[in-house]
Amino acid sequence: MERSVSKRGNTQSDDFEVKQMAKKKVIVEEAFKTTPVPPWTKQITVRAMVTSFLLSIVFNFIVCKLNLTTGVIPSLNVAAGLMGFAVVKGYTAMIEKCGLLKQPFTRQENTVIQTCVVASSGIAFSSGTASYILGMSPKIAAQGDEGNTPINIKHLDLGWMIGFLFAVSFVGLFSIMALRKMMIIKYKLTYPSGTATAYLINSFHTPKGAKLAKKQVSVLFKSFCFSFVFAFFQWFFATADGCGFSSFPTFGLKAFAHKFYFDFSSTYVGVGMICPFMVNISLLVGSIISWGIMWPLIEQKKGIWYSANLSASSLHGIQGYRVFIAIAMMLGDGLFHVVYMLCLTTKSLATHKSEKKLDSSSSPSTNPDGLEAGSSEVVSANYDEERRMEYFLKDQIPNWVALVGYVALAAISIIAVPFIFPQLKWYHVLVAYLIAPVLAFCNAYGCGLSDWSLASNYGKFAIIIFSAWVGLDRGGVIAGLAACGVMMSIVSTASDLMQDFKTGYLTLSSPRSMFVSQVFGTAMGCVMSPLVFWFFYKAYPIGDPGGAYPAPYGLMYRGIALLGVEGVSSLPKNCVTLAVSFFAAAIAINIISELLQRYETKYRIYRFIPSPMCMAIPFYLGSYFAIDMCVGSLILFLWQRKNKQKADDFAPAVASGLICGDSLWGVPAAILAIVGVKAPICMKFLSASVNNKVDSLLNG
Amino acid sequence: MERSVSKRGNTQSDDFEVKQMAKKKVIVEEAFKTTPVPPWTKQITVRAMVTSFLLSIVFNFIVCKLNLTTGVIPSLNVAAGLMGFAVVKGYTAMIEKCGLLKQPFTRQENTVIQTCVVASSGIAFSSGTASYILGMSPKIAAQGDEGNTPINIKHLDLGWMIGFLFAVSFVGLFSIMALRKMMIIKYKLTYPSGTATAYLINSFHTPKGAKLAKKQVSVLFKSFCFSFVFAFFQWFFATADGCGFSSFPTFGLKAFAHKFYFDFSSTYVGVGMICPFMVNISLLVGSIISWGIMWPLIEQKKGIWYSANLSASSLHGIQGYRVFIAIAMMLGDGLFHVVYMLCLTTKSLATHKSEKKLDSSSSPSTNPDGLEAGSSEVVSANYDEERRMEYFLKDQIPNWVALVGYVALAAISIIAVPFIFPQLKWYHVLVAYLIAPVLAFCNAYGCGLSDWSLASNYGKFAIIIFSAWVGLDRGGVIAGLAACGVMMSIVSTASDLMQDFKTGYLTLSSPRSMFVSQVFGTAMGCVMSPLVFWFFYKAYPIGDPGGAYPAPYGLMYRGIALLGVEGVSSLPKNCVTLAVSFFAAAIAINIISELLQRYETKYRIYRFIPSPMCMAIPFYLGSYFAIDMCVGSLILFLWQRKNKQKADDFAPAVASGLICGDSLWGVPAAILAIVGVKAPICMKFLSASVNNKVDSLLNG
Repeated sequence: MERSVSKRGNTQSDDFEVKQMAKKKVIVEEAFKTTPVPPWTKQITVRAMVTSFLLSIVFNFIVCKLNLTTGVIPSLNVAAGLMGFAVVKGYTAMIEKCGLLKQPFTRQENTVIQTCVVASSGIAFSSGTASYILGMSPKIAAQGDEGNTPINIKHLDLGWMIGFLFAVSFVGLFSIMALRKMMIIKYKLTYPSGTATAYLINSFHTPKGAKLAKKQVSVLFKSFCFSFVFAFFQWFFATADGCGFSSFPTFGLKAFAHKFYFDFSSTYVGVGMICPFMVNISLLVGSIISWGIMWPLIEQKKGIWYSANLSASSLHGIQGYRVFIAIAMMLGDGLFHVVYMLCLTTKSLATHKSEKKLDSSSSPSTNPDGLEAGSSEVVSANYDEERRMEYFLKDQIPNWVALVGYVALAAISIIAVPFIFPQLKWYHVLVAYLIAPVLAFCNAYGCGLSDWSLASNYGKFAIIIFSAWVGLDRGGVIAGLAACGVMMSIVSTASDLMQDFKTGYLTLSSPRSMFVSQVFGTAMGCVMSPLVFWFFYKAYPIGDPGGAYPAPYGLMYRGIALLGVEGVSSLPKNCVTLAVSFFAAAIAINIISELLQRYETKYRIYRFIPSPMCMAIPFYLGSYFAIDMCVGSLILFLWQRKNKQKADDFAPAVASGLICGDSLWGVPAAILAIVGVKAPICMKFLSASVNNKVDSLLNG
Repeated sequence: MERSVSKRGNTQSDDFEVKQMAKKKVIVEEAFKTTPVPPWTKQITVRAMVTSFLLSIVFNFIVCKLNLTTGVIPSLNVAAGLMGFAVVKGYTAMIEKCGLLKQPFTRQENTVIQTCVVASSGIAFSSGTASYILGMSPKIAAQGDEGNTPINIKHLDLGWMIGFLFAVSFVGLFSIMALRKMMIIKYKLTYPSGTATAYLINSFHTPKGAKLAKKQVSVLFKSFCFSFVFAFFQWFFATADGCGFSSFPTFGLKAFAHKFYFDFSSTYVGVGMICPFMVNISLLVGSIISWGIMWPLIEQKKGIWYSANLSASSLHGIQGYRVFIAIAMMLGDGLFHVVYMLCLTTKSLATHKSEKKLDSSSSPSTNPDGLEAGSSEVVSANYDEERRMEYFLKDQIPNWVALVGYVALAAISIIAVPFIFPQLKWYHVLVAYLIAPVLAFCNAYGCGLSDWSLASNYGKFAIIIFSAWVGLDRGGVIAGLAACGVMMSIVSTASDLMQDFKTGYLTLSSPRSMFVSQVFGTAMGCVMSPLVFWFFYKAYPIGDPGGAYPAPYGLMYRGIALLGVEGVSSLPKNCVTLAVSFFAAAIAINIISELLQRYETKYRIYRFIPSPMCMAIPFYLGSYFAIDMCVGSLILFLWQRKNKQKADDFAPAVASGLICGDSLWGVPAAILAIVGVKAPICMKFLSASVNNKVDSLLNG
């Protein structure tokens, strides 16, 4: 899930874009024929950098808040695109009125902003502040009992977090850069998110698109204001835990006790509007299976299956079932996808090879790069492609730069990381950097085909391998989590960069400007992401399973590390059996879905197979956010039924506004929490009998 | 206010109808040229009567609930029209499909239903179950201190209530029936509500209108369902007083203590959507003046102006200021309107007389009835008028029937009423019946001009006169309240009947069928209204100022009676000064508004002068319902800004749905209250400090 869902989550709205693309194919660059393309140094302007900086702050807050609440992060590309466009357009329009505009706002500039913001908020995810780094903290360690030893704990500190991120985040950018021409031009990989973003940006800069964009910006602004004001309003009623809208027992107190309620979070309603219906339904199905059926049944075995006098958050009690069954399901799903993607990549590469042979034998290509300029395509489509290729190949980044960069940065990292984590030796890091490029390539290729980034899965496997390698006594838990960080950063940034190259290719932006803005965004992310996390960390009790910021992945990732160092022996009774069953079930569900997708094309039943990864998340958290997201789906569904075109045009804007507004209220709310200002009112929900008691207390 | 607002409240949506009417004038009856008009006996069908009966129950519940909560009743004509149309159309469409339809659904039939339902729910208002009858009850009497003697109290009982209503409600129908030709045909009085209803019904029965009506019915149904479900949802959270959405301190606890909050009542949001903007703003202004400024200031004088150890509901304390200042303002407003209407009537009659003289001298009218068939009008408009006149004059009701009816019914009433209320002697009732026809004529005429029924004002004056006449020791309070009932019933039903004749005239319905359906509706109302009231009376503590059903007019009307028997001597300090000031202010505001309306036509500032009657209501109740209604206004305003046509077409349907759904939930809610089922949850609002106390109670 996590970031992966985000990518997959985007596919639905992309579908629309992609279809539009197909229609527009013939005309896109025609419309821009007279618009000059600035050189790459002019694509990176001061205003673009300032805008990127401001938006990065916003998106870092949003991603951090999402990470700390549920870890479900939708694709924020559309929001970033819209807001970047709105800021710069507003600024240039203002300047133009004063007659001071020197440089018009180009789509290349817009792409630079988009790339920079996405890179920076990408770090907020891959920095793992809410997953592997949080998993090292004493607080999470205390919940695990096992492994709660000094060597397996690291106190969080702003200094080493920023240092670590700088050490590991840039390596990924160089890892597969040399392959960009092959992936973008030769294999013509789709990169749905990148393509969608490019078409969004292209459409903004055509007159008709600009008009729609203006309307979308206004809709986004309205929903932003609503969501911000509503969050502000909610604040007044939540003076303490268990107060306020977030504890609203919408379906009754009994359902609330099982975490079935609607918690009035505009963020997750918005997220639900962006994610495909099936993601939300999978979440709901998962929460019904777990909190509706399994946990109540297991709780009846309290004292039999597990000791009755354990704390509620102990991994040896009911919490253990929740965490390890969820992990099993995620690992199963991850394993399937990794294997599947490897097969796909191999097959696809093999096909390309044989095709190329055929191609070169029948008509010797005059293009030194071996481009497959499809001869069957119409002339104007060729014109699009020619222009794009021209600009993509204009500003080269030599391969030796990539190679030197990778080696140099890896060397720095190999030296620096063991200083930060003495548990991880230099040879561990070296091994990671030897494997990483291969995985990065697999992931970037797979992502180009399916829009599904598996970075967090590679990270999880890294945890198991490295923590088992190091062992419990030598700090295997911390070593595994740190290795996860190394691995995830490379794999994740590599595929992000490739997405951005695709976007750049389609908007005639120079690869150099893309690369520079990616570097700039990454650097910003490395500083901002820990800072924002620190802000929340100081203001709230992060990682408390019953609190407002449960940060589920903290315990999950630590749980995986514990599995690595200890094996399955420490788990409560029958937990292993259940976990193995769910591991198998996850793989089975995926296989069934794939088979149906291939062989059952009539009713397309595969569309109704839930995703195991999505089903696993509520196992730990409960279903409240799944219900929020289903409400979002419901709104979208009704809207689409009423007016499909309008819903498709504006739903992403509404959703983005909801997410941004609610998340941004998090800033003043956290400040108020830090300075100790409490809300004045508690909206409390009491059962009738408790209410009688309270009334008699209050009345005398 | 009360019913008056309802009539005035209708004017805005009427404006639209009336304008439509102007456009349609030339074509209305053209469209119905080929549609035969059934004889009057066929206009009153069994299905019409059954539908009327069912809808009467619904509307009696709605009106009763509105009466018992705030006493603000919007015009429900549109709702009645839509629902009547929906029920019968649905029924006939079903029957038609089975091939069993013998008689098509005519607009005359629709008019009969409308008339019957409005008559029956009219009784729910003029029966005074929430005003003068409730004012007799020991519970309200206990709040007044003075006059709380056995002879000034009457225990409520279903028997005498129904008897009393039957005795007094039919007299009004005969009182000015003989004048219908004069008012409708000769003076061509507008009767905006009646006209609007007629055009609504006419439009339903043209093909294009039927399509719109179908959509409106579907919108009404949706908003009905929403409002019903939302009320149901709210119920779960209100297990005791001070729990639930109706105690939501939307603007904070301090504002809540001063009754400024939004109480999530869909009913009043709907009412606010029907009432003109100025009514809602007047309510808000009134509540700011009273609860925002005056009451807090007066409460600071506690112990100086009034004794500090009085119960909160005593009329000698702060409650006295609330009640008597409100009464003063209402009486001032009422006095102005009565005098104004008398002047208007006199002037209008005088003009008609002189015009007639001129008319007959210049061109001797060939029409025996002295009709003024305007020679300047186009032929087709004349065709409309000819057709209408033809059907209006076809089925006569002889004048002697009216006269005999009035005398006979008055005689019965003169004998019966003193049996029910021994405090009221036969000569009191006789005097009432001698004055009544004059007042009834004035009111019907004024209502025809301005759509503003002053029945409740006449009733209030009757209270003062008769309770002063009888005196405190001989039961003046009860006598005054009973006399109010006698007077109000006549005046109110007379103008209602005339409205319906106008509707009938415009839909070619026979006056006979109108009269019969009015009689039928009145009879239903006389039984249903007390029954429905009794239902609520048994289920809830009616008349409790802090409860869900404060029924403000109970104490108000009793307060007027106390004024009548005791004069102003018993009021707390400075209350008289304040009351007189507000009495004068009410008259002054009205005069200013009238003058502006006449002489300041540029900016039309008079539109922004608040109505004193509306301002007075929140003096007693607080502003929560005013805030609800302003929310309704806001919704309507935004909707109109977005799409004027759609808002005008569907806002009344949405509003009606909101009112009906929420009110209808009152039935199961009351049943649950009677059988003692309590809601499971209390949504409570505690200040932060109280919450700490409660938490420490709950945790140990």
